[in-house]
Amino acid sequence: MTSPTTKLNSGYEMPLVGFGLWKVNNDTCADQVYSAIKAGYRLLDGACDYGNEKEVGQGIARAIKDGLVKREELFVVSKLWNTFHDSDKVEPIARKQLQDLGLDYFDLFLIHFPVALKYVDPAERYPPGWTGPDGKLEFSKATIQETWQAMESLVDKKLARSIGISNFSAQLIMDLLRHARIRPATLQIEHHPYLQQQELVKYAQNEGIVITAYSSFGPLSFIELNMSSAENTPALFDHDVVKSAATKHGKTPAQILLRWATQRNIAVIPKSNNPDRLSQNLDVTGWSLDQSELDAFNGLDLNLRFNNPVNYGLYIPMFA
Amino acid sequence: MTSPTTKLNSGYEMPLVGFGLWKVNNDTCADQVYSAIKAGYRLLDGACDYGNEKEVGQGIARAIKDGLVKREELFVVSKLWNTFHDSDKVEPIARKQLQDLGLDYFDLFLIHFPVALKYVDPAERYPPGWTGPDGKLEFSKATIQETWQAMESLVDKKLARSIGISNFSAQLIMDLLRHARIRPATLQIEHHPYLQQQELVKYAQNEGIVITAYSSFGPLSFIELNMSSAENTPALFDHDVVKSAATKHGKTPAQILLRWATQRNIAVIPKSNNPDRLSQNLDVTGWSLDQSELDAFNGLDLNLRFNNPVNYGLYIPMFA
Repeated sequence: MTSPTTKLNSGYEMPLVGFGLWKVNNDTCADQVYSAIKAGYRLLDGACDYGNEKEVGQGIARAIKDGLVKREELFVVSKLWNTFHDSDKVEPIARKQLQDLGLDYFDLFLIHFPVALKYVDPAERYPPGWTGPDGKLEFSKATIQETWQAMESLVDKKLARSIGISNFSAQLIMDLLRHARIRPATLQIEHHPYLQQQELVKYAQNEGIVITAYSSFGPLSFIELNMSSAENTPALFDHDVVKSAATKHGKTPAQILLRWATQRNIAVIPKSNNPDRLSQNLDVTGWSLDQSELDAFNGLDLNLRFNNPVNYGLYIPMFA
Repeated sequence: MTSPTTKLNSGYEMPLVGFGLWKVNNDTCADQVYSAIKAGYRLLDGACDYGNEKEVGQGIARAIKDGLVKREELFVVSKLWNTFHDSDKVEPIARKQLQDLGLDYFDLFLIHFPVALKYVDPAERYPPGWTGPDGKLEFSKATIQETWQAMESLVDKKLARSIGISNFSAQLIMDLLRHARIRPATLQIEHHPYLQQQELVKYAQNEGIVITAYSSFGPLSFIELNMSSAENTPALFDHDVVKSAATKHGKTPAQILLRWATQRNIAVIPKSNNPDRLSQNLDVTGWSLDQSELDAFNGLDLNLRFNNPVNYGLYIPMFA
């Protein structure tokens, strides 16, 4: 099965369900991408920072070579890392990322974080991460306007069909919309029942910006990072609201969590190494949670964010 | 008594305690300003939007004429309203506001909200408010960078000694600091035990930006606006944590709430019509809450914001 799509303000259609490439290991990545495409995934959500774009490209190339898909049937997403916000650094790194992927355009290219760090030459360190070996943060003076204009020129040059943002909050989006020649097509944010961000979701959707949710399973993604707030928060898969909906609809807890998003036109990008779950995670459209279940989900919001640099010991309180 | 001061990054000293002019009625305003200066207040926190700058100016003029203070002993704050964000509108309105106040410079001039609304000619409607009689919001395309550059030129022209911001959240401040030639001296935010914003306060203070708290008494300021969330929240004056500290230190609950801020170098701008309370509110430095009391205050945070346009029926979800 494949995913239904939603129309972006750029005119392109984006699958509502994709395969997320964060924390996909290099040694299994090409195979996982191939398996995901074989299972029916058409959207691949990657990033420079995930450090696996060459392997993603290998998986894509094999899938195309084996006739599973054509390039134009895929929707490949990647992201501009923080160290490449200076206007003259955007196109070169986009071209390098495309080369790693073996592609000549992104379907969607996002500003990964509204954080501008000092340029790091890819020959020196790649992916550059937040800090060098000394652990220090070094910032760049590139404004979001400067970076966005460089993103817009990627569209002009047909290196990206659509462009968007990630981890932006409302005030900065409002400012971006004042100067944007090309409006962001999507906003990718952490989004799960413990961090619902209803006002931000509503605002972006009202502005014609499609929301993509990451970390749809909440704390689960962060336990492997040894984040204490994740370890100390009840797992969503075991939560009564999720479990009872799963029983009622004959679905897995994961499917319930994903459907809770897609039912409100929020795209999701789960990952799994398990072939069964890979297929199950695609089956999260075409059936519906009841209003009473949606209401019960509303009650779970804790405004609890896991993916915050501050939680990784990096003093960038961007969500304050 | 007068208030101690804190040093701004502009080099000027700002009193830690000031008199707030929001919701000060036109018919009593000049007298209240005069009384506040007589009681020892040196900082007056006003705004175009408060609609009382002429009367503020009358109170100041009388206080100076009567020899209570000299102009240079006062610290007069005002704010740029949302409809004047376009770069060519900033200086003219600053000059008009100074004329209303009868002054030739602001000690501090703030961007009131990170919201750019369509220009309204003061001859047509003043203060312009959020909307015209039709209730519709109309936006301007002026970016914060455009507006800030115009604010900076007020400093160049000696119309403002210091400039700052209000109601900004971290991402937009980070972007502002990338392009600012003159850094904001202060950030004025809603701040009380129910909305502590500790991460934002810490971030701004780390960046050398002084925080000014408004609505230090929490819901109290909003009950007269018939805001249901304010009516349904326990009054801070009656809260056990506040009352027991008041008893222990022989102070009023209001003094405890103000001291809780000033003890962390957060400026406050209470108002009162009552001469006793006017004096009491100035007496909020020079004595200290205990660590155990500060810890108890930490437990009161509800992340509960009252001064949000969304609460006034205006769809500008700027805090999402």
